Amino acid sequence: MYFHKQELQFKATPEKPDAVYARKLQEVLGGQYGEISVALQYQFQAWNMHIPGKYRDLVFGIGAEEIGHVEMLATMIAQLLEKSPLGITEDALQDDPTVAAIVGGTDVQHAIVAGAGARPVDSNGNPWQGSYITASGNLLADFTANENAEMQGRVQAARLYHMTDDKGVRDLLGFLIARDTMHQNMWASAAAELREKGVEDFPVPSNFPQSKEHTEFSYQYLNFSDGAEAADGPWASGPSFDGKGEYSYHDGPTSSVPMPPPTHPDVRLYGTTELPNIVEKTAGVVQDTLNKE
Amino acid sequence: MYFHKQELQFKATPEKPDAVYARKLQEVLGGQYGEISVALQYQFQAWNMHIPGKYRDLVFGIGAEEIGHVEMLATMIAQLLEKSPLGITEDALQDDPTVAAIVGGTDVQHAIVAGAGARPVDSNGNPWQGSYITASGNLLADFTANENAEMQGRVQAARLYHMTDDKGVRDLLGFLIARDTMHQNMWASAAAELREKGVEDFPVPSNFPQSKEHTEFSYQYLNFSDGAEAADGPWASGPSFDGKGEYSYHDGPTSSVPMPPPTHPDVRLYGTTELPNIVEKTAGVVQDTLNKE
Amino acid sequence: MYFHKQELQFKATPEKPDAVYARKLQEVLGGQYGEISVALQYQFQAWNMHIPGKYRDLVFGIGAEEIGHVEMLATMIAQLLEKSPLGITEDALQDDPTVAAIVGGTDVQHAIVAGAGARPVDSNGNPWQGSYITASGNLLADFTANENAEMQGRVQAARLYHMTDDKGVRDLLGFLIARDTMHQNMWASAAAELREKGVEDFPVPSNFPQSKEHTEFSYQYLNFSDGAEAADGPWASGPSFDGKGEYSYHDGPTSSVPMPPPTHPDVRLYGTTELPNIVEKTAGVVQDTLNKE
Amino acid sequence: MYFHKQELQFKATPEKPDAVYARKLQEVLGGQYGEISVALQYQFQAWNMHIPGKYRDLVFGIGAEEIGHVEMLATMIAQLLEKSPLGITEDALQDDPTVAAIVGGTDVQHAIVAGAGARPVDSNGNPWQGSYITASGNLLADFTANENAEMQGRVQAARLYHMTDDKGVRDLLGFLIARDTMHQNMWASAAAELREKGVEDFPVPSNFPQSKEHTEFSYQYLNFSDGAEAADGPWASGPSFDGKGEYSYHDGPTSSVPMPPPTHPDVRLYGTTELPNIVEKTAGVVQDTLNKE
Amino acid sequence: MYFHKQELQFKATPEKPDAVYARKLQEVLGGQYGEISVALQYQFQAWNMHIPGKYRDLVFGIGAEEIGHVEMLATMIAQLLEKSPLGITEDALQDDPTVAAIVGGTDVQHAIVAGAGARPVDSNGNPWQGSYITASGNLLADFTANENAEMQGRVQAARLYHMTDDKGVRDLLGFLIARDTMHQNMWASAAAELREKGVEDFPVPSNFPQSKEHTEFSYQYLNFSDGAEAADGPWASGPSFDGKGEYSYHDGPTSSVPMPPPTHPDVRLYGTTELPNIVEKTAGVVQDTLNKE
Amino acid sequence: MYFHKQELQFKATPEKPDAVYARKLQEVLGGQYGEISVALQYQFQAWNMHIPGKYRDLVFGIGAEEIGHVEMLATMIAQLLEKSPLGITEDALQDDPTVAAIVGGTDVQHAIVAGAGARPVDSNGNPWQGSYITASGNLLADFTANENAEMQGRVQAARLYHMTDDKGVRDLLGFLIARDTMHQNMWASAAAELREKGVEDFPVPSNFPQSKEHTEFSYQYLNFSDGAEAADGPWASGPSFDGKGEYSYHDGPTSSVPMPPPTHPDVRLYGTTELPNIVEKTAGVVQDTLNKE
Repeated sequence: MYFHKQELQFKATPEKPDAVYARKLQEVLGGQYGEISVALQYQFQAWNMHIPGKYRDLVFGIGAEEIGHVEMLATMIAQLLEKSPLGITEDALQDDPTVAAIVGGTDVQHAIVAGAGARPVDSNGNPWQGSYITASGNLLADFTANENAEMQGRVQAARLYHMTDDKGVRDLLGFLIARDTMHQNMWASAAAELREKGVEDFPVPSNFPQSKEHTEFSYQYLNFSDGAEAADGPWASGPSFDGKGEYSYHDGPTSSVPMPPPTHPDVRLYGTTELPNIVEKTAGVVQDTLNKE
Repeated sequence: MYFHKQELQFKATPEKPDAVYARKLQEVLGGQYGEISVALQYQFQAWNMHIPGKYRDLVFGIGAEEIGHVEMLATMIAQLLEKSPLGITEDALQDDPTVAAIVGGTDVQHAIVAGAGARPVDSNGNPWQGSYITASGNLLADFTANENAEMQGRVQAARLYHMTDDKGVRDLLGFLIARDTMHQNMWASAAAELREKGVEDFPVPSNFPQSKEHTEFSYQYLNFSDGAEAADGPWASGPSFDGKGEYSYHDGPTSSVPMPPPTHPDVRLYGTTELPNIVEKTAGVVQDTLNKE
Repeated sequence: MYFHKQELQFKATPEKPDAVYARKLQEVLGGQYGEISVALQYQFQAWNMHIPGKYRDLVFGIGAEEIGHVEMLATMIAQLLEKSPLGITEDALQDDPTVAAIVGGTDVQHAIVAGAGARPVDSNGNPWQGSYITASGNLLADFTANENAEMQGRVQAARLYHMTDDKGVRDLLGFLIARDTMHQNMWASAAAELREKGVEDFPVPSNFPQSKEHTEFSYQYLNFSDGAEAADGPWASGPSFDGKGEYSYHDGPTSSVPMPPPTHPDVRLYGTTELPNIVEKTAGVVQDTLNKE
Repeated sequence: MYFHKQELQFKATPEKPDAVYARKLQEVLGGQYGEISVALQYQFQAWNMHIPGKYRDLVFGIGAEEIGHVEMLATMIAQLLEKSPLGITEDALQDDPTVAAIVGGTDVQHAIVAGAGARPVDSNGNPWQGSYITASGNLLADFTANENAEMQGRVQAARLYHMTDDKGVRDLLGFLIARDTMHQNMWASAAAELREKGVEDFPVPSNFPQSKEHTEFSYQYLNFSDGAEAADGPWASGPSFDGKGEYSYHDGPTSSVPMPPPTHPDVRLYGTTELPNIVEKTAGVVQDTLNKE
Repeated sequence: MYFHKQELQFKATPEKPDAVYARKLQEVLGGQYGEISVALQYQFQAWNMHIPGKYRDLVFGIGAEEIGHVEMLATMIAQLLEKSPLGITEDALQDDPTVAAIVGGTDVQHAIVAGAGARPVDSNGNPWQGSYITASGNLLADFTANENAEMQGRVQAARLYHMTDDKGVRDLLGFLIARDTMHQNMWASAAAELREKGVEDFPVPSNFPQSKEHTEFSYQYLNFSDGAEAADGPWASGPSFDGKGEYSYHDGPTSSVPMPPPTHPDVRLYGTTELPNIVEKTAGVVQDTLNKE
Repeated sequence: MYFHKQELQFKATPEKPDAVYARKLQEVLGGQYGEISVALQYQFQAWNMHIPGKYRDLVFGIGAEEIGHVEMLATMIAQLLEKSPLGITEDALQDDPTVAAIVGGTDVQHAIVAGAGARPVDSNGNPWQGSYITASGNLLADFTANENAEMQGRVQAARLYHMTDDKGVRDLLGFLIARDTMHQNMWASAAAELREKGVEDFPVPSNFPQSKEHTEFSYQYLNFSDGAEAADGPWASGPSFDGKGEYSYHDGPTSSVPMPPPTHPDVRLYGTTELPNIVEKTAGVVQDTLNKE
């Protein structure tokens, strides 16, 4: 169960309206790596988790915080839009290029659809979607997904920091970036613990028997481009990250087979086959069949 | 530039047709973490990369291999569909529940749209989409995204391994799983090198000045749920993963502010405001304005 | 801010596994009218609302409850999947048509992607998306949207009720349906109050000056089909619902104008124009221009 | 069957070109609540309806009118684009900020993809999609969906009215708004009749036996937020809207149960389980199984 | 304007219910090449067309017919669903594998969402979307798109013909296939006339000055794969289709340039650059800048 | 298998930065008819093809070239973004309307998400999706799809040519347009050969027995609009394009049937039926049934 409290975790009030910036801020609310994504990702991981205890407490503990971050951003966006020209008649006069430029750079659905409110979309107006999230039930895989999400999110927030000089907005971003710092660290620490305790390890999933994979290819770097510098990386020689193999470097594939012959599915799927080549022998028969059925 | 060779990296021929399994295999071809995703993800990372040399060679080197993996899966899927009942008349007779069950479990677009061919969709028939990929230009973030992609991909391939006993399919999966092993290791090794050499580090992006974030919140675990076991994790006390702070554990938020008052945008956006409460004073004026314009 | 409590509002445990039903239940979790939709819809309405007080408390008060409903359904789905055949080798033998039928009727991503967990998708596997929700800032419009959402949701839950005889599932549905009963009533009562107090009224938005619309068409029923029975409805004669007009019935349009002539945009957009007809006169000039630029 | 007549129901010609406004107008053509949505929504309701006679005549009668509204908007948009700068070379010179602002605010696909024509997208360029529409077969639910659609549509049209001072555009909007007035009224009158005649009633679906729902929760307002003013609403005490119960107000849930234990699906799904804790006893066995299969 | 008549162009009644087939039939109603696609494609082409007269009359004339085809399919689907087991309790008993198989193979939203009605989706349940259609304003391009649409549609209908032996369904398909025959022919004849009359010609758009393209590459077949048989085709030697060049065959590219150096965008975008390599000289300065701003 | 070479087929370097143009150029990279579409379309056609030899070599030969075109455009876009104002603080000052206009006209995700890099999206920021491509297995249908794709692509590139005067960009477009010239010609020549050799012919699929279609409608032009000029086209009289029939022109349909009666699905789907009309007789029974189950 979830309970709401009519307070915010941090101040979310801009100094001045800025509809163009409101559009940009939508990215960290409703984008691929926005707060809706992490909020739902952590909660689905919790609901699907197979282990009671600290890892489940962890994803539940963070998941609810992230819904509050969605709320702070939505509140901020509504205020950025409140007094900003949204294309309403006198404001949008094309004679004033500054105003025209502002209106042109906004998310026009902020005005037309939401009446100066936030929306569950990214900075280009693409609706948030369920396919952004990851919850596989494998904890090392999922915590790595979380690490990535917090990294991408912090990169985006850092970029947004420099796209405004509004002290109120920067203040909120400074808070959200701090939380991203914590969350990146947290997932990295949690992933490290999973490996230390042997709960999961590289390669994920670690209890799939490696005897079933073609291990001769398991630690080969195969270079399908013509740049040769990747031979110098730690992935090209020496012990592998998982400690279970030795890397080797190869220019191109170390195996190859001919392509299998083309398929010939049922003629009633009306794909094109070699019919003309074999027309004397079989076409009549095939056509008879088609006519008959 | 890309060049094609009419060979496969590994044998991709099933022992027998299986249209239901063909549908399942679409997941690792065209799903969120399928081969199209990694192929395009690595290539966009290469095209957007700001550093010449080994890291760019790395993403280019792998990117082209992954397009070949798409090809192996597409080839396999076409063969799994080749002789399988696809709902064509006599096969689909509902009197034979086995056949009916098979037909019911297939991707019906395999037959209707592709004529027994592979499609750029996942195992539920959702089209692959550009929003699956990540290429931010920040290498530690992106390599972590890659690590995650290879983990999720290997988990899915391992699951698929047990959903068939076709030796040909398992043989191909055994190869793909081996390559996932390599690629997981590789991205982990590459990320480790980035950190060792100081190219990037935690928290990502590492050269965003932490002085600009509200550092008092940067290493706090804030528990927004009522499970207390997360207090025992390595993220709740002791040195942080990035070595720059000390974790602390808190039950609930360590800060809060009242919500800002509701916004009052332009009346011409026709949102509902307190109009009725202030009707004696201003409603007439507002209505006059609306009438006039 | 949002807080999580590791309890459910109602028991959410099935009697027995049923992966096919788990797929169906996804509709009311992640479909167009599922619980994610109402949860986010009510919260966005709250965040965008322009009036403090009871209406905002109302949407906040319900919004958090709905997140808990998502949680109950996700928990139920994970349990329905727990022991069900998910296509893992021995279970999926095509020799047993019952098992094959079950596997064929599941959401295969439940197994492959989520490892027997719930997902933010509908019963056909389409990811939930932000374009499902409505939050315009106009309260009568939005409460009507809410009324509709709770109606559609209760219809779907009622249908799902008869698609299982699992007492545990029916028990949960009996609870959710009761809450839908309340929420339908609640939005209807709230909408009625808005009208009584004059906060908003028909036609929405009620303070758009009707003098600006072409009022001669505001209460005409225009019949563009050839069925004549709609002339007998309360919308075809008598006072209008809003009390501001008198309905009238018309067979077909009461106005019409010729279509405006086709447009002739810039030739550099390379649309097809009458060029050939006027080739003697102007084509050379146009072509010269194109060559020159 | 549908027949087209090369006339418009109302004049749809702007005074002057305005590509930025053309983009905005796309919202009411191809947005969530645009004319394509209502046109297809009413027709699918007609095709799926289970009752012959006036209700079916009603949705058919309106459905065809709405296709004509799509046509009027498409025609208007093409004319707004006809002579407007679309980014063609000399117009787009960045030295003229006014022109640059205009070009920046347009839907660039209007020029690149459609050659100065209308498109089946919303004002942010998102393609129209089938998931916007509602046709459940339950008339009270669906007429409420229609009421909402006409309300949202009229709100958007009213907002758009103030975003231009072009008399031609306003003239068309004045007509469309009048039709929205009629259609809102019409659906409200039709819904009222359904209830009066007992065809359907609250709660929808009205013939689902309320004995099957947990009626103790059917009229409780449960407040999951900390704002207390919702206790003053007509939904918090007194007779319920459907006349079948008495509202009551509760702070928080009136029921709760512990969460069910985490699930333990098949190990071959490779989710993370408590394996490490039970490693002495069973891990070997599990691993043996995995190795063997 | 559009007018509806409560008749169908052809009988659309099945002999018996078949919910699995109803799902398949959705492909030609709401799929990429279904009837909604051609209906809206032709109408958008009409609305965007720059030439009055026969070509515009043509797309208008066909467009309205296609809406009627959507209607016939929707009507057929509703009847196929009418008496079919849709998973309602007693029907869905898993003890009867035939029924289970049928239910498993259906579009479950047909029952849950539409109450045994048709939906604007394809045979995998993906919603129809505006990005399926093409209306560029260039008639030769668009008529070729139409030709393709009618071809793909007829291929799909032909496949569907063999997936049922219901005489009523086959009767309707026999009608729709006949109309596809006409429409394929029609667009081919229309395209041929465009070329004969010089309205448009190859290469499309024909009045883009070929002097502006790098004509040395305009008729070269460049083989980027290692199969050599394409050298035997009519595209590899001899006069080009447009009569304006001579084809030639080349193994691989006939030109190449080095890749441009990687980009170095603003440091405040926090992409990874060579910072470490230049750390002694500039890192401090950069970091100072970042700190300061 | 695919191999990458770190060279481009043609120079892809702009003279100067232009972030607004970078957004526009995304259309031909990641739009409906962009290079990702043709690259994957040709490759899926190759993988699904049923004929070995020259047609398969053809699609493979072109497919790999097109991936290289994606690369050239991505490289170009990254350079157009490199030094352009992306909304970073000092650049975005709203006091300079020119800069504001530029920033407003960009794809803001170029900066926020990709850090000045290219993305797999169109010019409105819609992600590329698998539903853009066509690979039916029927070669005449698919080559016509390819012809259309190259036509639409060349039209778009020609339009983009005039939206910039940057010599570097125009140079690349001049190359891509030349390749589109070749590819249009090539598919037309290949389609012509298919027909000449009888591999496929009109109507597609040509070996579906026309005896199974209702041939009386196969060559009738049915005019569902009221414009009469289409009677003058080559599709309205004379021999049909496929040489198998004679066109005829008809005003409106040549056949019609009454609509079938509305369906009455299972009452447990809770659609609205005539219940009230038959209430005395059956409602009680129905309600009893519902109560009981």
